[in-house]
Amino acid sequence: MHTSFTIETQGAGLYEVTPVVARWVAAQALHEAALTLFVRHTSCSLTIQENADPEVQTDLAAFFHRLVPPGSDPSMSWLTHTYEGPDDMPGHIKAALLPTSIAIPTLRGQMTLGTWQGIYLFEHRDRPHRREVVAMLR
Amino acid sequence: MHTSFTIETQGAGLYEVTPVVARWVAAQALHEAALTLFVRHTSCSLTIQENADPEVQTDLAAFFHRLVPPGSDPSMSWLTHTYEGPDDMPGHIKAALLPTSIAIPTLRGQMTLGTWQGIYLFEHRDRPHRREVVAMLR
Amino acid sequence: MHTSFTIETQGAGLYEVTPVVARWVAAQALHEAALTLFVRHTSCSLTIQENADPEVQTDLAAFFHRLVPPGSDPSMSWLTHTYEGPDDMPGHIKAALLPTSIAIPTLRGQMTLGTWQGIYLFEHRDRPHRREVVAMLR
Repeated sequence: MHTSFTIETQGAGLYEVTPVVARWVAAQALHEAALTLFVRHTSCSLTIQENADPEVQTDLAAFFHRLVPPGSDPSMSWLTHTYEGPDDMPGHIKAALLPTSIAIPTLRGQMTLGTWQGIYLFEHRDRPHRREVVAMLR
Repeated sequence: MHTSFTIETQGAGLYEVTPVVARWVAAQALHEAALTLFVRHTSCSLTIQENADPEVQTDLAAFFHRLVPPGSDPSMSWLTHTYEGPDDMPGHIKAALLPTSIAIPTLRGQMTLGTWQGIYLFEHRDRPHRREVVAMLR
Repeated sequence: MHTSFTIETQGAGLYEVTPVVARWVAAQALHEAALTLFVRHTSCSLTIQENADPEVQTDLAAFFHRLVPPGSDPSMSWLTHTYEGPDDMPGHIKAALLPTSIAIPTLRGQMTLGTWQGIYLFEHRDRPHRREVVAMLR
């Protein structure tokens, strides 16, 4: 059983997708399965993070922005792939540091997420993008 | 087939879980399968690393401590999510940089780990924690 | 269904494996499945990245070389696991920062990769190595 989810992003940051994924998993009504989530892009990521305090998401995005600043930052003057904009190559680097695919066991139609775990699309580009996440349940 | 493993951690660092996982996989006696391991927390991780020399694990923990110092470090004064302690938000950041889920093919009841590969729970918090890892074999 | 791919690396950098993986997946002719790729080593990684402009791969390798310099770099003088050479422990650290396993849904015998996504073995060691990637399709 498979599907795909579309997420319209409005700039860099984390976008929670837990509810829509949980609804789809529940609808498949499998007793026991493994869910694979896969994002079909190279400048955004998937991540599982605390979903209680929004400050966690803000700090996460801030950390990665500091670790991999935009190409316009003097510390990034060594970049060679720059013609797609200052947020493009840093986006690819963040996409290497964060997951493209996530696997989550499911039991009785529910993901085995911990109490504080939420699933996020982590957008690394500044402009709006239409992102696609493929889900496979087996 | 699924189970869960509980790991009692006593501070930040790597805790090997290879033997307990290997025993469970062997007991399922599947000819060919894919093992999914998933940690149900947002301030610890799973990692596959060299299990020969303990210095590798020491250096790994040291690297991540340097890359993401505690919130009490002046270089981390930009953090906003600080009320759960100086090791909390850095723990979430490390949990984003390291895997929450790992997938390992198994053959004839054995994981296809390389000679030097061990599976570790990587604890990012200082105080003792009880961690749960869900395993699914399909 | 499983197989393994051998990649002969000639120094640090990215080696594309998309075509050989795609051919094997197509030959299995499964209508719908999940592909698990797993690298059996602790000083190289798997990554999914843009395959259009080779500068992306150059910049990626350069970023990780800057983030985790060789042990001979003064900034890495804190390393303790050094007897296997200056590129060994940094290789383990990069292997922690990048994926050991990747899961990709497949449909009608094709991986659901996005237009610009390629699969790479990311070698972290300087000398030539023979690397093995296990593939499982279920």
